[in-house]
Amino acid sequence: MEENTMKNWRAYRNYGVYLVTDRELCLGRPLDEVVLAAVRGGAGAVQLREKHADSREFLALARALVSRLQPMGIPLIVNDRADIALAAGAAGLHVGQSDLPPEDARRLMGENAIIGLSVETREELLAAEKLDIDYVGISPVFATPTKTDTLAPWGLDGLRWAREHSPLTLVAIGGIHRENAAAVLEAGAHSLAVVSEICSADSPEEAARGLKALFR
Amino acid sequence: MEENTMKNWRAYRNYGVYLVTDRELCLGRPLDEVVLAAVRGGAGAVQLREKHADSREFLALARALVSRLQPMGIPLIVNDRADIALAAGAAGLHVGQSDLPPEDARRLMGENAIIGLSVETREELLAAEKLDIDYVGISPVFATPTKTDTLAPWGLDGLRWAREHSPLTLVAIGGIHRENAAAVLEAGAHSLAVVSEICSADSPEEAARGLKALFR
Repeated sequence: MEENTMKNWRAYRNYGVYLVTDRELCLGRPLDEVVLAAVRGGAGAVQLREKHADSREFLALARALVSRLQPMGIPLIVNDRADIALAAGAAGLHVGQSDLPPEDARRLMGENAIIGLSVETREELLAAEKLDIDYVGISPVFATPTKTDTLAPWGLDGLRWAREHSPLTLVAIGGIHRENAAAVLEAGAHSLAVVSEICSADSPEEAARGLKALFR
Repeated sequence: MEENTMKNWRAYRNYGVYLVTDRELCLGRPLDEVVLAAVRGGAGAVQLREKHADSREFLALARALVSRLQPMGIPLIVNDRADIALAAGAAGLHVGQSDLPPEDARRLMGENAIIGLSVETREELLAAEKLDIDYVGISPVFATPTKTDTLAPWGLDGLRWAREHSPLTLVAIGGIHRENAAAVLEAGAHSLAVVSEICSADSPEEAARGLKALFR
């Protein structure tokens, strides 16, 4: 909680390559090893997403990543659980449309925390403008096997529409890999969020570096 | 959050019949209907336990119960999720051994909140003495189909041992019903926590009243 209240993470502007974790996709490697390799390769933000861990394990994972990442200036953003984020002193919280409402997330996390919100439709994107959040996750840009509970993909055209119609920072997620990433940036994404492209890469560091090189 | 910080719920001493919710066991009746009936029958505390709801639904349920119960002086205690408890202004949080550590729970919830901790062994019970908590859940007293991930039941002898060896408020849970409840109180429980005995009763109000009558 101390980290969180002391530092204004909302001034952070270097999401760039944004790693979203999935331990099951890490090919048996420890999560912190994969995360630190990604950061060496240039990842600028890390979201800890745990859908099956119990609260105690989730907190232990969050604390371990906060202690490694945040002294380097890299924000650890916790998925869904504001209590875990607060207890771990994480820089931010990412919520989906079925998670804590963004207003409650902001109230709990405080004025200095990064709050991100997934938007799956144009209506959700436009509605997000009124919220006190720091970025939207445009989800999914492409169809992906990682998340199966999402609506129709935005596609590059949808992303272009989003950039034209919203002033918010756009973090594109879903099916992004080395080959299509340049097109995603060209279509208007400010940041590239990836799961398997880094977690399941032979070299998470090189995978991150490859994506990072696409940013000017 | 306002409720929580304004009122000192830790002075509350009337747990008595302590309802732990399980929507799946409510025979299709709305949760608030069952909860309010139980309170009319004399339940003195309600724990909202939701293992499958997403965060937004969990929060909506918690808020609805807080707004009905707490003006009547009945604490709503949220299971596991400190963020839901804080956002809803709930009186307290109940954690198990795999949930948020009690120290973190207290730090997040503040000095005025009720914190309860489940203990499944004598070692856990004795260790709980050093913690800043308000009660322990002696779990399970008897074997029960409601929870299948617990260790060996305490039994009445174990409960007697607990009362002799711990100064903490003992909330007995697991397999308690009308016929064995008097023995559970005699063995040393301060409070009777039930799930199906009330949630699945033909009349939750009468079920609560029957248990309440056993307290002097």
